[in-house]
Amino acid sequence: MNIIPPKVLAFDVFGTVVDWHSSIWREAEALIPGVDGNRFASAWRAGYKPAMDEVRSGQRGWTKIDDLHRIILDRVLKDFDIALDEQKRRTLNRAWHRLNPWPDTVEGMQRLKSRFMLTSLSNGNLGLLANMAKHAALPWDLILSAEVFHHYKPDPETYLGVADIFELQPDQVMLVAAHEDDLDAAKACGLQTAFIRRENEYGPDILMKYGDLTRFTYSANDLHDLAAQLGV
Amino acid sequence: MNIIPPKVLAFDVFGTVVDWHSSIWREAEALIPGVDGNRFASAWRAGYKPAMDEVRSGQRGWTKIDDLHRIILDRVLKDFDIALDEQKRRTLNRAWHRLNPWPDTVEGMQRLKSRFMLTSLSNGNLGLLANMAKHAALPWDLILSAEVFHHYKPDPETYLGVADIFELQPDQVMLVAAHEDDLDAAKACGLQTAFIRRENEYGPDILMKYGDLTRFTYSANDLHDLAAQLGV
Repeated sequence: MNIIPPKVLAFDVFGTVVDWHSSIWREAEALIPGVDGNRFASAWRAGYKPAMDEVRSGQRGWTKIDDLHRIILDRVLKDFDIALDEQKRRTLNRAWHRLNPWPDTVEGMQRLKSRFMLTSLSNGNLGLLANMAKHAALPWDLILSAEVFHHYKPDPETYLGVADIFELQPDQVMLVAAHEDDLDAAKACGLQTAFIRRENEYGPDILMKYGDLTRFTYSANDLHDLAAQLGV
Repeated sequence: MNIIPPKVLAFDVFGTVVDWHSSIWREAEALIPGVDGNRFASAWRAGYKPAMDEVRSGQRGWTKIDDLHRIILDRVLKDFDIALDEQKRRTLNRAWHRLNPWPDTVEGMQRLKSRFMLTSLSNGNLGLLANMAKHAALPWDLILSAEVFHHYKPDPETYLGVADIFELQPDQVMLVAAHEDDLDAAKACGLQTAFIRRENEYGPDILMKYGDLTRFTYSANDLHDLAAQLGV
């Protein structure tokens, strides 16, 4: 284990900092009478990675997440055979700006912020992340997004971009994330890594299973646990 | 006067939010025995606009402010006939990350933040602005920089870029600045404008003189005054 503490903690956001599944579930059921919000949230999210991969491969030009979310939403509504007017589609698409934090998030971030520089490193666009931070009182020092780098994670330009912005070596930055693929990509770029366990990220019907977590610099049950392990 | 309130306040930073002159003065005198910190700060800042204009005209490729500050610093040290080793030059160049706020800044921003989305719109780079915000406890909702747009103010891409990030019309954004040229450029892009009086920005020997300030949406003595005029 690397024992030199990092200077910057760069956080994945969807799933790591905020609970997208229950937030989208609730907003979908509030707006669409009779819909199964649990299934709807999962279907919407399932389109996320393929849509970004279209951008990452160059098949689609740079497109921000708000617009990708909308493209996927229109497709999911069709699959679910739901008629929804334009105004309601817009309102629902903005639900991603109003995601709620996990119970430990805000206090855990406040603890970590006393020692480290906290930045987001999310595929969400800047406007979405700023609205979410205001909604959920997330105490970022800086909001960084794939939008700044015009590259989506797991492209190396995103992880190395954080180090470059702070004029640090890669191992002075630690990615904090609930997703092994994100952490593996950061590790391959030389960043330190902190895994956060979010077993219910995909809702109550799915319990996440993880691989060997000892390959990451830290592995924690939540942000309080990470703060404690970092001696904050 | 436009009476529809804006949704986002975009702040100029150097001079409007932080007092660069006295901060640089003090750090220069602390590091360089016998130097006239007042003159030194003014000479360093005098190189700022010409250096950015080299980037804006395409004469120099994209270069962030930290690097422009360093180029100017080396020139000023030569002009002042001061020998300074590499480590001290680096320390002094980072003084721009440690600028102190004006007395009204933090409380004024807190008031405004309760009603509006607050973002920086500064020519300073993201790392500089994040370090400064942590140093000075500036409660930004979002940190935006010329670095995001790869255009320096007063290029229109910066002002219109803020509106685009929040998916707003230009007149739903208000630039808050102590500089008439910055506000004029924002106004030409359709933004609302708030002038903040910082008569001692350039130190005790220079009292700023201003033109007709009624051309701006608001004109205020400080951020508390602006908050009061906006009914916060």
